[in-house]
Amino acid sequence: MLEIEVKARADHQQAKELLTDMGAHFIGVQHHSDTYFNAPHRDFGNTDEALRIRSVDGRSVMTYKGKKLDTVSKTREEFETDVDGGNTRSILLALGFYESGVVKKIREVFKYEDMTICLDSVEGLGEFMEVEIGAESDIETHKKQIFSFLENFGIGEEDSIRTSYLEMVLEKE
Amino acid sequence: MLEIEVKARADHQQAKELLTDMGAHFIGVQHHSDTYFNAPHRDFGNTDEALRIRSVDGRSVMTYKGKKLDTVSKTREEFETDVDGGNTRSILLALGFYESGVVKKIREVFKYEDMTICLDSVEGLGEFMEVEIGAESDIETHKKQIFSFLENFGIGEEDSIRTSYLEMVLEKE
Repeated sequence: MLEIEVKARADHQQAKELLTDMGAHFIGVQHHSDTYFNAPHRDFGNTDEALRIRSVDGRSVMTYKGKKLDTVSKTREEFETDVDGGNTRSILLALGFYESGVVKKIREVFKYEDMTICLDSVEGLGEFMEVEIGAESDIETHKKQIFSFLENFGIGEEDSIRTSYLEMVLEKE
Repeated sequence: MLEIEVKARADHQQAKELLTDMGAHFIGVQHHSDTYFNAPHRDFGNTDEALRIRSVDGRSVMTYKGKKLDTVSKTREEFETDVDGGNTRSILLALGFYESGVVKKIREVFKYEDMTICLDSVEGLGEFMEVEIGAESDIETHKKQIFSFLENFGIGEEDSIRTSYLEMVLEKE
């Protein structure tokens, strides 16, 4: 599965008004605590991969993200599975993986057409908007669709942030 | 969590009669297809660790087992979590892990006191009995308890098999 995703800074109050006007469907609010792991055999900081256990309102999800596949979006391969968070952490640590950082955020999720729009308030970083399409192929078409949607919010390719929240949090520290 | 476990060859018909006579509680039958993975950064064949995705009657479980902690039983640290089997396989492969073998078996599970007794019919290997106690400590006490229980079946320390089903399957191939 490919995750075709664009992220940019966005004022949430303004964005919410626009989303409502467009008829976007509000899905819900999630509280994320994301623990990122690095590998013993290669440095994800160099390979641009990510391995994470997300705790989200009582559930735990393990996600692997491959390296980014293009230069303006955050498109990448992604696999995820529900897990027991504590035991999965123990498995990763036993295998030699180690924690690289924690990102906490509140995410408000909207749906519009086949896009998922996330308004993220990230602890220590501020307000962001992520627009995502899950697809098996056709990166270019989906990317155009996302950027055309983002024009409504005054967001262009030059505003796209490919740095991850984790990298931003680590840079700040 | 420690898994204190002893495995030996055992005739199932005879074992089942004895278990019934002792008043052991029959739990159920499970069909296991276990895919084992090896790591890119250390050889589990040398370190005596195991990482497995078990498919059991529609569920998938990922399990890590640490190296064995004594010389006559299969006692070791163990962590496990329910997972999406296909996506977890994809995550492991993307991280550089690779499949080392598959073990298929039918397991009949019984409970007696705090012990779990498994009668395993392993594809290509034959009939085995595994007795297991999960505990946080006291390996020696629990091991004595298991071997004292196994005396009823004519099984002694000299019959204990510490070789894993995977190793036995790979040796046979």
